[in-house]
This record gives sequence, C-alpha cells and structure tokens, in this order.
Amino acid sequence: ILGAGALVLSAQAATSGSANESLLQMQKNPNDWVMPTGTYNNWRYSTLDQINSKNVKNLQVAWTMSTGTDRGLEGQPIVIGDMMYYETSYPNYVYAVNLNHPDQIAWKYTPPRDSNAPPVACCDVVNRGPAYGDGMIFVDALDARLYALNAKTGKVVWSADNGHPKDGQTMTGAPMVVGNNVIVGIAGGEYGVRGYITAYNIHTGKMVWRGYSEGPSKDTLIDPATTINGATGKPVGPHSSIKTWKGDEWKVGGGTTWGWYSYDPKLNLIYYGSGNPGTWNPSQRPGKNRWSMTIWARNPETGKVKWVYQMTPHDGWDYDGVNEMVLVNVKYHGKEVPALVHFDRNGFSYVMNRENGSPIAIHKYDPSVNWATGINPKTNEPIVDPAKMTEAGKDVKDICPSSQGDKDEQPVSYDPKTGLFYAPLNHLCMSYQAFNVKYKAGFPFVGAIVNMIPGPGGYRGRFIAYNPMTGKTEWQIHDMFQDWGGALTTAGNVAFYGTLKGMFRAVDIKTGKILYQFKTPSGIIGNPITYMHDGKQYVAVLSGVGGWAAIGMADNLHKSSAGLGAVGLNATLTDYTNLGGTLMVFSLPSKVASAN
Amino acid sequence: ILGAGALVLSAQAATSGSANESLLQMQKNPNDWVMPTGTYNNWRYSTLDQINSKNVKNLQVAWTMSTGTDRGLEGQPIVIGDMMYYETSYPNYVYAVNLNHPDQIAWKYTPPRDSNAPPVACCDVVNRGPAYGDGMIFVDALDARLYALNAKTGKVVWSADNGHPKDGQTMTGAPMVVGNNVIVGIAGGEYGVRGYITAYNIHTGKMVWRGYSEGPSKDTLIDPATTINGATGKPVGPHSSIKTWKGDEWKVGGGTTWGWYSYDPKLNLIYYGSGNPGTWNPSQRPGKNRWSMTIWARNPETGKVKWVYQMTPHDGWDYDGVNEMVLVNVKYHGKEVPALVHFDRNGFSYVMNRENGSPIAIHKYDPSVNWATGINPKTNEPIVDPAKMTEAGKDVKDICPSSQGDKDEQPVSYDPKTGLFYAPLNHLCMSYQAFNVKYKAGFPFVGAIVNMIPGPGGYRGRFIAYNPMTGKTEWQIHDMFQDWGGALTTAGNVAFYGTLKGMFRAVDIKTGKILYQFKTPSGIIGNPITYMHDGKQYVAVLSGVGGWAAIGMADNLHKSSAGLGAVGLNATLTDYTNLGGTLMVFSLPSKVASAN
Ligand SMILES: O=C(O)c1cc(C(=O)O)c2c(n1)C(=O)C(=O)c1cc(C(=O)O)[nH]c1-2
Ligand SMILES: O=C(O)c1cc(C(=O)O)c2c(n1)C(=O)C(=O)c1cc(C(=O)O)[nH]c1-2
Repeated sequence: ILGAGALVLSAQAATSGSANESLLQMQKNPNDWVMPTGTYNNWRYSTLDQINSKNVKNLQVAWTMSTGTDRGLEGQPIVIGDMMYYETSYPNYVYAVNLNHPDQIAWKYTPPRDSNAPPVACCDVVNRGPAYGDGMIFVDALDARLYALNAKTGKVVWSADNGHPKDGQTMTGAPMVVGNNVIVGIAGGEYGVRGYITAYNIHTGKMVWRGYSEGPSKDTLIDPATTINGATGKPVGPHSSIKTWKGDEWKVGGGTTWGWYSYDPKLNLIYYGSGNPGTWNPSQRPGKNRWSMTIWARNPETGKVKWVYQMTPHDGWDYDGVNEMVLVNVKYHGKEVPALVHFDRNGFSYVMNRENGSPIAIHKYDPSVNWATGINPKTNEPIVDPAKMTEAGKDVKDICPSSQGDKDEQPVSYDPKTGLFYAPLNHLCMSYQAFNVKYKAGFPFVGAIVNMIPGPGGYRGRFIAYNPMTGKTEWQIHDMFQDWGGALTTAGNVAFYGTLKGMFRAVDIKTGKILYQFKTPSGIIGNPITYMHDGKQYVAVLSGVGGWAAIGMADNLHKSSAGLGAVGLNATLTDYTNLGGTLMVFSLPSKVASAN
Repeated sequence: ILGAGALVLSAQAATSGSANESLLQMQKNPNDWVMPTGTYNNWRYSTLDQINSKNVKNLQVAWTMSTGTDRGLEGQPIVIGDMMYYETSYPNYVYAVNLNHPDQIAWKYTPPRDSNAPPVACCDVVNRGPAYGDGMIFVDALDARLYALNAKTGKVVWSADNGHPKDGQTMTGAPMVVGNNVIVGIAGGEYGVRGYITAYNIHTGKMVWRGYSEGPSKDTLIDPATTINGATGKPVGPHSSIKTWKGDEWKVGGGTTWGWYSYDPKLNLIYYGSGNPGTWNPSQRPGKNRWSMTIWARNPETGKVKWVYQMTPHDGWDYDGVNEMVLVNVKYHGKEVPALVHFDRNGFSYVMNRENGSPIAIHKYDPSVNWATGINPKTNEPIVDPAKMTEAGKDVKDICPSSQGDKDEQPVSYDPKTGLFYAPLNHLCMSYQAFNVKYKAGFPFVGAIVNMIPGPGGYRGRFIAYNPMTGKTEWQIHDMFQDWGGALTTAGNVAFYGTLKGMFRAVDIKTGKILYQFKTPSGIIGNPITYMHDGKQYVAVLSGVGGWAAIGMADNLHKSSAGLGAVGLNATLTDYTNLGGTLMVFSLPSKVASAN
C-alpha cells in the first residue's frame, strides 16, 4: 500500500553529479513549474495551497490569451520566475509571456513550416509542451526538428533534425532536459517508424546517443548480458528484439516514443514507454515484437538500458505503452521500494520496482478490460482472451478497452498526502478488423479497421482516485466524453482537470466532489499547472479541443471508422464545443486569496 | 444641448401600423438584446443596473465559447428570452445557445461557402451580427447571400442572392427587420460596386424594393420633386445623382451600404449612410459624386427617399459615410426636435433634424481634423483645405483623419442619463497618393497608395464622452491602438468597450475612470451587449482581432501600404495579441449580484 509517509520526492532524495543541478534545485520551488511534468518524478503535484478545497469555489479567470491556433492543445506552460513559456499545436508557435505583463507577448517563435508534417501526424497536430534548461527553451516541431531557443529572446541557439516527415516521422512529445542532455522521442508508429529516443547535448545540439526500440544491440543500446527483462528478472540475452520478429519486419516495427519521460536522479535512470508494433495487423508480425509496448529504464548520459518490461507482447489492439511513469516509493513486503506507477493503454496499472523492472502490483484499473483476463504470475505477461485476439480478415467485436486505451497520453497526477493517483481516463470498447498492408515509407502502415464505442454504462470518460497497489478506485466521476486532459493535484486538497466538452474542474481530492467548474472556450486536452506570482497562486490550462479523442472535429472527418476508428464515437462532440485555442489562467479574487 | 429629460426613446414614443409590433415591444425588455443595435434608435444603452459603477470591479468571466474561427469578430450576440444567437466572421457560422445550457450548442448553421467571397472583402472577412424577426434569424453571408433561419432549429426558411462576389460584392453588415421587411446592405466600394440597400419580405424572401446610392430615380427611389436635400432644405431636383458624375462613372460609383441601420417608427423612416465613391482617385470622377457619402432617410416599406444629406462631396480620402445614425431628440431653439447624431469618418459629428435632414450642429470631434477647416454655413458643405485635397499623381501628406476616419464602423453608445455619447475612436493621419485605375468587375478599383500614421500625440485610439451639440469632449481615454470595438452604456453608470489589444473595460460614465478591465483572448473589435438571465445581468462581447484596423494580422500582410494603407500602422499589434475567436460572457459573483 502506498503510504504517504513512505513517499519521498525522488528528486529531493539525492542528487547525482551528472544531473542538471539547476533543474534539480528549481523543481523544488513551487512558485515555478519548471518542466512539462512539473517535477522529474512526474507527479504533477504542487505544494501550493493558497487555492484550496475551501476557497476554490471562488476561482476566477484571471487572464486569457488566444494561441492563434485551432488544433488540439495537449501541452502545458512552464513557468520560470517571471516568465511563462508554452507551445501550440502545429504550426508550433512558441510564446514567452512576462507574468508582470500578461497583456503582452514577450516573444514569439515560429519554426519554419514543413507542410509534409501535418498529413503524417496520426492523431492531430498536437504538441505536448516546451522544456527549459540552462537559459534555453527546447521545443519539438511537428516536422521532427528540435530547437533550442534563447529563453530571453526566442532566438534559435541551435536546431537538430530528429527525423523526417517524408518517412512518416513527426514529433509531438515534450522534451526532457537531464544533465547536459535534452531527451526527445519520435512519433510515427502508424507509418511503420522504428521508434527511438535521442539525447542531444543542450549546448552544442550534437547527438549524444540514440536508442532504438527494436533492432540489434548497437541500435537499442541493450546489453544482452546486463539489461534485465523485468518480466523474468534475468538478462534479456542475445538478439532479444530481432528474434521476436519475422524477418526484417523489426525495421518497420514501430515502438515509437511520443509519451512523457521521467527521471530518477538517484538511480540516474530515465523512464519512458514505447508504442505499438508496426502495422496494427498482428498476423503480419508473428512473435512478441520486442521491444514495442515496453517500459524502458535507460542511463540518461549513455542511453544504456538498465531494464525493460514488455506489457503487451504481440499487440493486436494498438495499446501503445507510452503512457507516463510516475516515480514513487512504495511499501512492499515491509520495505520501502523505489517504484514507478504506470497506467497502460491496455487497461492495467503497473507498479514496478524502478531499480530492476520487477512487477510489484498489476491491476485492471477499469473493470471492463476484457482482452486479457489477468497477468500470468509466472511469466508476468498478460493472459490474453483468445476470443479478443485480433487477426487478419476477422472482425473482432466488443474488445475493451479500445485502441485509445483506458488511458492515453493524458497524464495522471499523484498526491503524496493521500497516496492516491488522480487519473483522467477513457472508457471505451471497439471492434477491430485487421488486414494485410504493405509498407511504403511515409504512407500509413495501419492494417486495421476500427470502430470505437462507449464502454459499459455508456459514458466515455472517467476521472478517478486510485490506489495502484490494491487496484481500488476510491471515487470516480463519469464524463460523457473521454477525459483527455491531464490532472494536477495540490497541497490545497484539490485535483484539477478539464473535460473534452471544455469544463475546467476543481475536485475535492478526498470525495471527488466537483467544487468548481468553468466552461472554457473550447474542449480541454491540455494539462493544468499551477504557479505563484507576486504572492498569488494561479492555475493555467490550455483550452483547445483535438488530439485523437476529437480527431473528427480537428481533421473535419465524418466517416465513423475514420481517424483510426475514433470519428464515429464522438460525432456529437460538435454539439458541445468548437475548435479553438486559448490559454486560460485562473486565480482567486484578491480578497479571498489574501484572506487565506 | 442634449437634455436627458428632453430625450425620448423614439421607439417607445409611438408605434405605426406598419412596423413589426413585436420587435417594437420586445426592444423595451431590457432582459433581452433583440437586435444588433439593441434598439431601433441605435443607442446601445440598457436600463439594467445590477452591474454598476460601484460593483463592476468584481466582474468575472461567467462562461466562454470558442467561435471556431480566427478572423475579426465585429458583431454582437442577440438575446431573445432564453436563447442567444451570434454569427462569426467568414465562414459565417451562426450559433444558437440556450442560456440555461451555455455548455452546449443548441444549433449551428454554416452557409455554403463561396470561396470567391473572401478575396474581395476589402477589410477582413467580418460580419456584424444576425437579426431576429418573427421566429426567424436573419444572417448575411460574406458571399452576399441572405438567409432566413428558423430560430428554433437553425434550418433555412429561405435564402436570397443579394449580390455576387465575382462582381466584387460582399455582405458584412447586420440586417435590420422593420415591419415585414428585412433590410440589408451591400459592400464592395473598393471594387466599384454601386451601392444599394434592399428590403426582402421576411416571410417570402422576395425582394420588396431596392434603392441604389447612384443612378436615375427609378434606381435610387429618390423623387426629384419631394426628396429633400438636407444641405439646402429643398427638393433635390432632376438627375440629382447622375449629373454629379462624369459620363457613366456613376455605374461603378461606390456608395455601398455596409454600416448600421436605424429606424424611427413614428416618422416611419430608416436611416443609414452610403460609402465612398468608386475609385479612391478623385481626379477620375469630377463632380460631387452623389449620393455617395450621404445620410439617407427612406420609407422602410417602399424605399422612397424622404431626404438625403451628403457629408463629403467629391471624396478624396475614403471617408465612407456609413457610420451609424443614433436617434435622439434634442432641444434646439427651445423646441424638442427629433434628431439623429452621426460621427462621420471625416471627423465631424453631425446632429441632423431627422424629419427633414437639416443640420442642427456639426463639430469636429477630433481636433486634429485638417482636411476641412469647417462647414460652410451657407452650403452646409465642408470647407476643404486645398492642401489636403488629393489628386492623381500627387502624394498628399499628413491628412487627418486617415481613411479609417476618426471613427469607422465601431458603434457609439448614447446614455440618456448624461445626454452624452460614448464613442470608441481612431486617431490617425495619413499620406495619400491617388492614381488612375481601370474598372474591371471583381477587381480592386482603388487607385490610391495610402500610408497611415498615428495622430498627434502618438496614440491611435480614443474613448470619449462627447456632447455633439456643443462639440465638447467631457473626458477621454487614450489607447495605443484604434478602439475598433463598439460601446455599451447602462443604467449602472458604466460604459463598456474593448481595445484592439484585447482589454475589455468598464468605465465610469461620469469620469472616464477605468473601473475594471480584463484581458480577453484576442483583440476586441466586437460590440458589448448586456442581458438578464435568471435574475443575473450578463455582459457579452466577442474577442477576435481583425477588421481593417488589424488587417495586417488577419490577412498576414506585411508591406506598410498593404491592406489599403493600414498594415504599417499596426505592425506592432502582434506584440500584444493573437488572432482568435471567443465569445466572452461576464457577470458578477452571485453574492455581489444579489447584494445589489
Ligand atoms: O505511434 C505513434 O507514433 C503515435 C503517435 C502519437 C502522437 O504523436 O501524437 C499518438 C499515437 N501513436 C497513439 O497511438 C495515440 O493514441 C495518440 C493519441 C494522441 C493524441 O495526441 O491525442 N497522439 C497519439
Ligand atoms: O466600401 C465598402 O464597401 C466597404 C466595405 C467594408 C466592409 O464591408 O467591411 C468596409 C469599408 N468599405 C471601409 O471603408 C472600411 O473602412 C471598413 C472597415 C471595416 C471593418 O470591418 O473593419 N470594413 C470596412
């Protein structure tokens, strides 16, 4: 059981000589929000409590800013001192705002546009936010170019090609700065892109290392002798990736890396997940398709892999394993164990020993999960229900969850006071008809017709308070559409999240009671953050519907199975909200704030 | 002097059998906002006072709605009972929102798109709002088609072609329903469109009458024998239009009708102004170019012209005369006279007897006006400074105001309690170089290179409290950019307006003190309205920068003289705001509202 007392903010536990000392220091200052995930441990938790469960009902919109875009806004601002920075969906405008003058734009940077990028972005032209390090702002552009900008001026310090849209490669994730490296992923799993994660030197822009998800050891940076397979507790052995694929299929094997990253400075490991194996048609790729659908622990300086754990071997549902890893310590067999908690697309929550990848607790966090009956305690692999296994030429019905998973990229928040996870979720099922498809660089490599439907009960979204050690849901809120925006918790005992309809909510973390809600201009798929400026606590969130959840609206698609099977599901979303793009910043009226 | 006691809300003074009785009744209900201008007399004044100068500092954003567009939002919602309706810039989305469920879209109507329209819209693809009548919503689409929609369902009842984008014709104005007619104008003065105003039967969609701004009597509906020229007090006589043009030039003579309309039910007259004469190059069109730049009084049932008054004969500056006519009664020579007040682009404010068009008081409302030294009391025509007269081949410098006028389409508000006008204004000068140009249908017929600069003092916008009888400015606020959004006054002693930077302001009508301001997502060029719902007063305004003031941003133009000379002027506007589109609705916190 996760005991609050037993939990230590990893980043505060120790520092390592190799880590970026200044970010490690900076993340302790609750007035700032120094990285996309708030802190390296991915808690999205703030110790600020000026806004709290007692007064949050008085929350107001403090100021707003149009982003100048109308596609899905999936990121969040970062706040460093007086400055706020955020990035929009394509064309990836980057804004700097001086919080003393939020009626002005301190600078704006627009990367050169590569019109080849939007057509190969699978799930709207989203971006998950910029990162900060050493006076620079690091931004991914959709066309897979990485930019280092001078934080003061917005001028380009360096840029690096991290991929090529012509080959189906894009970048949507948020970079993470660790030590002297900025670490970025790649997207394009629906185009047969072989995933990799890359570290660039923050000062020179030179590539330091790149680790692929599939291929020989020199590509994956897996050491057959020392890299542990978390499922077995043993070294992965030779050819651990290639031998799980038919022929050369691994070369277009997917396993992209477009999710969130986390970092443990003490163990000096970064954590992230890899996505679906190339082509959604499993018949075309016999084998376990390693290391797609895998949790990775790598050394941030060398890329060397400490351990891997594949959650969904031989995926047949597009259950990308990229969702974030939240670093907490848990009590396990009487000991405090450094763990990571991960809500996978496949509907299972994983508590893993983050030192060696061994499973601690795995539970279904949505009871409707039916593709697997559970986890085999011997193999630590899922026990797949053969009736729900997909194959070429077969239309498999009522698989739960859908390809969007019970949770997709929308990040959870961990509150150390309650020891619970606050998770915005999907609640969907699907039919899935696989078919053979030929790879051609830059062309869709999907091979499945999917149709998503609401899960049992008819609602499509949930916001839950959850204990991943026990699998117990303490309370839940049902929402009409997927809750595709992230969560934030604070010392004020409030959890914040936004709905696809555009309601921005403050919820009592103890009871799940909605204490405040506000109708923002568009639907919310962004992640709330909080910061303090001039003695006042603010909560900021981007409002701009889109992402895969609202791909029908974003891409103006109407065929039910379009948008990788997601369009029919949310056809009525247009009855509730519009495309848009606004940064919304909330605070208490001055009297209430100072009475605190 | 305008005495508050002497002022009567015209529409309440009497009703005429021919008028739409229900709108005349409805406009008395301050809970609603039944037509674009609030009331037929164009006051944009509300008797609501729950929000007032004492408590407005507590104003909050109540809810918001993305419009799904990012071009200039120049209109305002109308409110009929529980329903709100508004229209966006092109593609002219029309939204209905049930105020009991502002988190839903009751219906949305999108007219078919004619891609020929946007390129021929002179000044951004704006729209000034829908009108209501007899269970229908009337909307102009940019492509010059007029739609009658079922207010309950949004279904098209009828539609009518009011012009053709291929000929340079567009529609941007707000319709006005009078009696059984819906009255609409036409735009395209920069394409040599000969202006007209048209009445359609609200039930059948059939044209009832059309009155041109130039041409023979059968076109203009001017009766040479009975139509009065307000300047002379005498009938206009034969060929009053054609004889003021060289040859056939009147056929491409401009005088479009894209502004606001007003209506006096007692006199049974509608009032509006006509725009600039065709080609901005005056050398090409010797003569007074009648009836461009003219105030018109027409019978709403027949279109017959009661009187005309030309403000800027032989225009050489693009001082379109389309700005709104505000109907008030004034004390003049001891008598109460039915008057109209008009702030013209040319920098003069006009108080006219609205029965017969005779001038009562004409003053410069911006002291920087220099194209004319005053009004000749004998001819009632401006005394033009020859040094500021433009002509082909000459670059005339430092003309004030600029082509955007000291006020453009942004409507003023009249407060009967103070007897003053609250006017959002421009404060600009320009250089103007005319040249010969050939007419070709659907192609620009401009013939001038203009460059606008800030007026004396360096600021570009003003918000003033003004007495048009005396020409006295009671107070003024200087703004960095043009104040291109309209004004609203209320019985709560507050004037509301928005700035191009996007600040939405509540101002003390007595002192001009800014009591409240809020940074909306984008710049404001829309017009605030107020209404009461469920016992709570709301103020609503559209935030979405654009229009001619921000044409550089809207059209992504960068050459200084582009956008008809407006681009260079506001090149730094991008340092303050972004394109966007949001309906912003404000109210007091429940406690403050009920303590009222
Ligand atoms: O395989 C990939 O490379 C890839 C990329 C992305 C992306 O970059 O946004 C998504 C996915 N897959 C994906 O499977 C998915 O569910 C998804 C949702 C979203 C979103 O932004 O809403 N992106 C992506
Ligand atoms: O001559 C015309 O037909 C015509 C049309 C319009 C329009 O339709 O918006 C404008 C003007 N002229 C014009 O002169 C002008 O200053 C102007 C400003 C705006 C605006 O929306 O900001 N429109 C127009």
